[in-house]
Amino acid sequence: MTFALDPRLERDTLFAGDLILSRVLVMNDSRWPWAILVPRRENLTEIIDLPAAERAILMEEIASLSQALRDLAEPQKINVAALGNIVSQLHVHVVARYEKDPAWPGPVFGVGTAVPYPEEEGRAFVARLAQKLGTA
Amino acid sequence: MTFALDPRLERDTLFAGDLILSRVLVMNDSRWPWAILVPRRENLTEIIDLPAAERAILMEEIASLSQALRDLAEPQKINVAALGNIVSQLHVHVVARYEKDPAWPGPVFGVGTAVPYPEEEGRAFVARLAQKLGTA
Repeated sequence: MTFALDPRLERDTLFAGDLILSRVLVMNDSRWPWAILVPRRENLTEIIDLPAAERAILMEEIASLSQALRDLAEPQKINVAALGNIVSQLHVHVVARYEKDPAWPGPVFGVGTAVPYPEEEGRAFVARLAQKLGTA
Repeated sequence: MTFALDPRLERDTLFAGDLILSRVLVMNDSRWPWAILVPRRENLTEIIDLPAAERAILMEEIASLSQALRDLAEPQKINVAALGNIVSQLHVHVVARYEKDPAWPGPVFGVGTAVPYPEEEGRAFVARLAQKLGTA
């Protein structure tokens, strides 16, 4: 089984470790605490391309990541989305949202231009997230 | 256990039956084949408010609804999202997307104004979806 991360996901994110099924990536956009799960399987575009047993694992990884972001970032809301209209490789966004954030109450996808983390700050956020998730 | 559907969800949708966990609603917006799952539980806003066993059921209901929309509407992509920034009651959107649809490749949420189905057409779509899902 070969897994290759989509080059655009690779370019736009910071690596935060591997869970049982999914790679965890932090979106390199400091406007939102925002992470992405990418199941490490070939040729997936839809959630229904995964077998049921792995869908169940994916759901628990969504829950773990949601809880970790809630603990770290104390958001007012968590957004979970598998869209894939631009990058077709199956990936699930988990985004911490605030009533004062720059896209509220709309979705964050495609809004404005990413504001990359200062290098040290990005590293620190990834480290805290990886510790919460047990992927450190 | 009391379940009350959010009034805005009620106003904007057509009832398409109940699965084991979730109510199925069709968004009354003919621009996209678009349905919504609402777990019939009180006081839920996040997926992680559900216990793990019900999260697993929700994932399978997402899969069933995705497959039903794929069969009925033959989309190029399926979008799955739990946002809840406007309506906080936990609900999961499953939307059939096309490269020529009016929001592609962006998300559909909050785009323009809903175009309600002509009554007969809405009823027919709900009936076909309910038959696929076994909620008819």
